[in-house]
Amino acid sequence: MHDALRINRQRLINRLERLGEIGALPGGGCCRLALTEEDRQGRELVIGWMHELGLQVSSDAMGNVFGLRPGTEDGPPVMTGSHIDTVRTGGIYDGNLGVLGGLEVIETLNEAGIVTRRPLCVAFFTNEEGARFAPDMMGSLVYVGGMSLEDARATQGIDDQSVGDCLDAIGAGGEAPVGKPDVHAFVEVHIEQGPVLEESGITIGAVEKVQGISWQEFSFTGISNHAGTTPMRLRHDAGHAAMATGAFVRDLVNRIGGDQVGTVGAFDIKPNLVNVVANHARFTVDLRNTDNSRLKQAEQELQAFVERLAEREGIEVEHRTLARFDPVPFDPGMVDRVEAAAQALGHSVMRMPSGAGHDAQMLARVCPTSMIFVPSVDGVSHNINEFTAPEDLEAGTNVLLRVLLDLAE
Amino acid sequence: MHDALRINRQRLINRLERLGEIGALPGGGCCRLALTEEDRQGRELVIGWMHELGLQVSSDAMGNVFGLRPGTEDGPPVMTGSHIDTVRTGGIYDGNLGVLGGLEVIETLNEAGIVTRRPLCVAFFTNEEGARFAPDMMGSLVYVGGMSLEDARATQGIDDQSVGDCLDAIGAGGEAPVGKPDVHAFVEVHIEQGPVLEESGITIGAVEKVQGISWQEFSFTGISNHAGTTPMRLRHDAGHAAMATGAFVRDLVNRIGGDQVGTVGAFDIKPNLVNVVANHARFTVDLRNTDNSRLKQAEQELQAFVERLAEREGIEVEHRTLARFDPVPFDPGMVDRVEAAAQALGHSVMRMPSGAGHDAQMLARVCPTSMIFVPSVDGVSHNINEFTAPEDLEAGTNVLLRVLLDLAE
Repeated sequence: MHDALRINRQRLINRLERLGEIGALPGGGCCRLALTEEDRQGRELVIGWMHELGLQVSSDAMGNVFGLRPGTEDGPPVMTGSHIDTVRTGGIYDGNLGVLGGLEVIETLNEAGIVTRRPLCVAFFTNEEGARFAPDMMGSLVYVGGMSLEDARATQGIDDQSVGDCLDAIGAGGEAPVGKPDVHAFVEVHIEQGPVLEESGITIGAVEKVQGISWQEFSFTGISNHAGTTPMRLRHDAGHAAMATGAFVRDLVNRIGGDQVGTVGAFDIKPNLVNVVANHARFTVDLRNTDNSRLKQAEQELQAFVERLAEREGIEVEHRTLARFDPVPFDPGMVDRVEAAAQALGHSVMRMPSGAGHDAQMLARVCPTSMIFVPSVDGVSHNINEFTAPEDLEAGTNVLLRVLLDLAE
Repeated sequence: MHDALRINRQRLINRLERLGEIGALPGGGCCRLALTEEDRQGRELVIGWMHELGLQVSSDAMGNVFGLRPGTEDGPPVMTGSHIDTVRTGGIYDGNLGVLGGLEVIETLNEAGIVTRRPLCVAFFTNEEGARFAPDMMGSLVYVGGMSLEDARATQGIDDQSVGDCLDAIGAGGEAPVGKPDVHAFVEVHIEQGPVLEESGITIGAVEKVQGISWQEFSFTGISNHAGTTPMRLRHDAGHAAMATGAFVRDLVNRIGGDQVGTVGAFDIKPNLVNVVANHARFTVDLRNTDNSRLKQAEQELQAFVERLAEREGIEVEHRTLARFDPVPFDPGMVDRVEAAAQALGHSVMRMPSGAGHDAQMLARVCPTSMIFVPSVDGVSHNINEFTAPEDLEAGTNVLLRVLLDLAE
């Protein structure tokens, strides 16, 4: 083993900053929406680095890119990676750290003259963010066989262009068959995008699972009335019913406890006037839990509450599910390896769930997978103020180095 | 007395429909915003009718118009009336019934050759609706000395024109001194604009009082966070706090009971996205009660709730009072007269508060006052679908006739 080996912090940061210059926004952060000209430039830069590091670069028809470093034996590689596309107001760490941290590990091994037994692979997947084309995590979803290449190519974006046309336009699609190479194991380093590590004063998160997500939309229709002349007993107040549901969501989440979170983030009422009882309200409920049975319980209790409320208030309810993903558990042995590597390096570490979606959750369908989280200052992400301290970037990438060596030996 | 005397229903309806042709809207209703060309035409029509009925017509500098019918004795007249301006999507009954019902009473007395002891007066007051110039009930407020003519004239409307310029432009201001003639008593017939009479199956409301009104606006500022990655205990969710306050308003209103009503009618949150904890929420609370001490209690409990909530959730609160009017009690003797007149005519009658504001509440500052309500179908008003059945218009105007005769003899 190579216990004393460490990555080069400044070299990692230099690459993060250099990639962040492509699509840079005034005031910081960057905008590299998937399959745009900025994405093309980002790909060119990262692929150039892969070549400089001696990796065997291939890409599949979905534009997923793989940089392979042969081992002393053949067989499926140990893979790391993430994505280099960003949201419209993205930071320079989200996704990029997972790719450039992987390259930094490769350069560290190259410098030390270490050849692992299993091959290593650094990958980046197309359109993880979903900010231009839904669904998010599209490239890794296609890679693991969860979506056909044809369906992905036919997807229309927010600008009415298709994934296929945009892949062709920037020349991102390659010759490698979709779903190759096979993977021995996958580990991804990523910023937390939440406040838990910072608030706990802990450097490394060993990610055990990804939360399941349930997005519900409710539309309530009542009767618009004069706020002064209409007695309470004669009202059918869609706005009140929506607010009562919002208040219930908090009660529900507190009662279920554990990892359960719940958010009413979008909320509109009509006619939206101070002295008129609202006849219409539309709002969303975002429920997440790492435990699918509890997530289902939350959904059922919410539905039951809304039905009782609608009966009592005399309002009409329309309901639709906007999104529903089951929780994804990561391989316990892989989580142990992340935890052990962090401890061996002297970093504080905690097991934790991921509240956001990541390419790793797709890879978990086909191989043992885990993630390494590092702190996000103030939990801020998808924002030009996204920031992770250099020593935390370094710590996470050293954990990645150690886990990759561990898996590849 | 003239117990067998009755008004002419068709003549009343003809005048309502004729006036409703000025500013008529497609599909019904009309738009005669105060001091517009449509208002000028409406004034010309009604003043013409006043002259035809032999009334001595005068107007003051505020554009309030008075049609006087001398009695056998001099002295302050018994006055009735209301307004002929409408909201942008008004009906043909709101206000107009009070003025044209008064003219119908005059014509009925003329036909019967009855001269009362006290003079009678039918008035209409400028800008009751407040839909173009705030505050509402402006003309009657100036008439009773609650606002100076100068302040009223200087008021800027939603179209940036002033009341003074518009009064001059349509030639509405007259020579009569503001605040003359003195009034012996005032009674106004008006549609209820709420659902209570219809729901109770009762024809006449003897209005005892006008609700006090408290309009509060709250702005909550929290912190915007990812709905997946932010544990509940680390949130400062302005949207949740606003919804919890909305739910509290209903609890508060139910607990206070009686005439108390409460409405959260306007509600906005930012950034208003399904998966983002809201960092900002702005909403209004409309509280009304006929009992000022209970209205104050509601205001205080709301304020205390918001303070505790802000402390618990870690959010900033800004608060301002948008409007505050004390309740207006009507003269008990006047309410008795309305009730007795309705009973004598064989109509079902109930004492009730008014949930909306009316010119009568201004007149109540200077003379004994009450109001006669007739049912609004479905409680609808300020809407082109506003409707009151012909027999109810007739019943209310017959009660007006009887109360005016009672007061003037």
